[in-house]
Amino acid sequence: MDYEIFELGDVLLQSGAILPQAFLAYKTYGTLNANKDNVIIFPTSFGDQHYQNEWLIGANKALNPEKYFIIIPNMLGNGLSSSPSNTASPFEKANFPNVTIFDNVALQHRLITERFGINQIALATGWSMGAIQAFQWGASYPDMVERLAPFAGTAKTWPHNAVLIEGIRAALQADAAWNKGVYTAPPEVGLRTLGRVYASWGFSQAFYREERFKELGYSSLSDFISQFWEGSFIHSDANDLLAMMWTWQHSDISKNPIYGGDFTLALHSIKARTVVMPVRTDLYFTPEDSEYETKHIPNATFRPIESIWGHLAGFGLNPADTDFIDCTLKELLEKNETRT
Amino acid sequence: MDYEIFELGDVLLQSGAILPQAFLAYKTYGTLNANKDNVIIFPTSFGDQHYQNEWLIGANKALNPEKYFIIIPNMLGNGLSSSPSNTASPFEKANFPNVTIFDNVALQHRLITERFGINQIALATGWSMGAIQAFQWGASYPDMVERLAPFAGTAKTWPHNAVLIEGIRAALQADAAWNKGVYTAPPEVGLRTLGRVYASWGFSQAFYREERFKELGYSSLSDFISQFWEGSFIHSDANDLLAMMWTWQHSDISKNPIYGGDFTLALHSIKARTVVMPVRTDLYFTPEDSEYETKHIPNATFRPIESIWGHLAGFGLNPADTDFIDCTLKELLEKNETRT
Repeated sequence: MDYEIFELGDVLLQSGAILPQAFLAYKTYGTLNANKDNVIIFPTSFGDQHYQNEWLIGANKALNPEKYFIIIPNMLGNGLSSSPSNTASPFEKANFPNVTIFDNVALQHRLITERFGINQIALATGWSMGAIQAFQWGASYPDMVERLAPFAGTAKTWPHNAVLIEGIRAALQADAAWNKGVYTAPPEVGLRTLGRVYASWGFSQAFYREERFKELGYSSLSDFISQFWEGSFIHSDANDLLAMMWTWQHSDISKNPIYGGDFTLALHSIKARTVVMPVRTDLYFTPEDSEYETKHIPNATFRPIESIWGHLAGFGLNPADTDFIDCTLKELLEKNETRT
Repeated sequence: MDYEIFELGDVLLQSGAILPQAFLAYKTYGTLNANKDNVIIFPTSFGDQHYQNEWLIGANKALNPEKYFIIIPNMLGNGLSSSPSNTASPFEKANFPNVTIFDNVALQHRLITERFGINQIALATGWSMGAIQAFQWGASYPDMVERLAPFAGTAKTWPHNAVLIEGIRAALQADAAWNKGVYTAPPEVGLRTLGRVYASWGFSQAFYREERFKELGYSSLSDFISQFWEGSFIHSDANDLLAMMWTWQHSDISKNPIYGGDFTLALHSIKARTVVMPVRTDLYFTPEDSEYETKHIPNATFRPIESIWGHLAGFGLNPADTDFIDCTLKELLEKNETRT
């Protein structure tokens, strides 16, 4: 295995449930310097594991492991950190407790403070649900996070995004083989259906109009849907996906004891120098929602990714979008001015 | 029953299949005048039946039955005209042949010429798949259609729209009770899932952000999804919906012997004075696609419905959108200039 495990012991979740013998799987890149001030945290997104973030890391990139100590914590429910698929009774499978973004980030905070003695984060970044976690880092630990760069993600799950989740959850659960989470073989029909429904959300209308999937090596729309989209979820555990959907649907950086649900206050409390990068054509983490949020973060810049790759402009598939994100991160990391 | 039946006999479809004893269900409003030149044709849309078009008809409206003879033909597959659910073996249920938009309009043409002796249409209009049929009227019978006013619909199903259909079809078919179309009881889970998936497409992000569903009498998002959206399809026959999805997915006004697949030529051949009304926030019949099409129709105006009600701005739920459509139709109908 190419990652480490951090044992958390029995963890009290926001819901009041105790997740016994919880653990985070994580991977680091580069070396922590003596001052412990070269840290970048880069959480994972829905259905993804740490290696799916690696496209943004490299010696020529902003996330340069020769310079920075980059930590990718796997989010709870993703099959590597504590998840329905790897937790013992009585919290196995569909019995896994509901976990919030706040929980995820609190445990990631334990990882970096307890294991590494880190008290300062040069940059928190992430895509999609990873972006939500980055926002939560900025709101939960405002004095610790120097820079914040969420891309294709918002500080809460806005209503239409929640409706989309209702659809993909129903798609997965429509397969009787899912059997309320008690299955021995994967509910393959449900997983494929989830992929087919997701296909129309992941990329923009213009992406499909221009058949940009051909740049990814697919010769037809039909192949792209079957191979790329059904393939995106077919190897995932259904209960894991459902656990992450719950987390996603209930995301809100203010829904915690610090902010008591005051979303504007939570945004306003972020101290990091922030660059918010929505994708112009993202159909569910919309630029409009990001623009609203940016206005409420004191030291934030709105820098949309002008791409027709939709939400997946932030997934490392399109070189132009990757360059834009990378350049924006480089610019942000080079800024050393005092925070406002 | 509040509608009429027009018997078509055995019908040769575009696919080469013969649909035996086919029929169209239709309803008329108003009286055909002596010149037979006061005709408005207003086809139905996906999952809908004629009564769901009636919101746009009234004595104070553009579609005034005191002035016009308005015909609403039910599209094939909608459960009233020939459909999987009402056709005898060997074409019953999943064995129903594939029907195109071209087929639908050719049969509607027989209805109005053979039954009524009509040779002139003052206006062809419709919403969504009804709009596609209106476009087909303009392209199949350019000398017959004086005015054309499709709203929230395009002249073909553009690629992203086709991807959406892949998703909703998969959602319905994920229910094992669907059983490849051979069921005795409705595949209720699949029908509900279809509704839940559709929920995120039917209205815009802003509609949900602003909780505009409250204007429809729903107190919560959850109620809206369960009652409005699941309710939208739960009473439909699954094979009927699948037949209409096939028609929808393969829509293209040029895919027929007249135009041989030359989409631009088909658009260019429309002679009607045309007003194209996409909804600015429609997520699948996009204003961009409509704008492209408008540019290729000689006598066409692009008049987007500036609404956050998304695709369903054309479903008669929001008074402001209904007024906009009605006023635009009034203006169009009042124009009597010679066609270019």
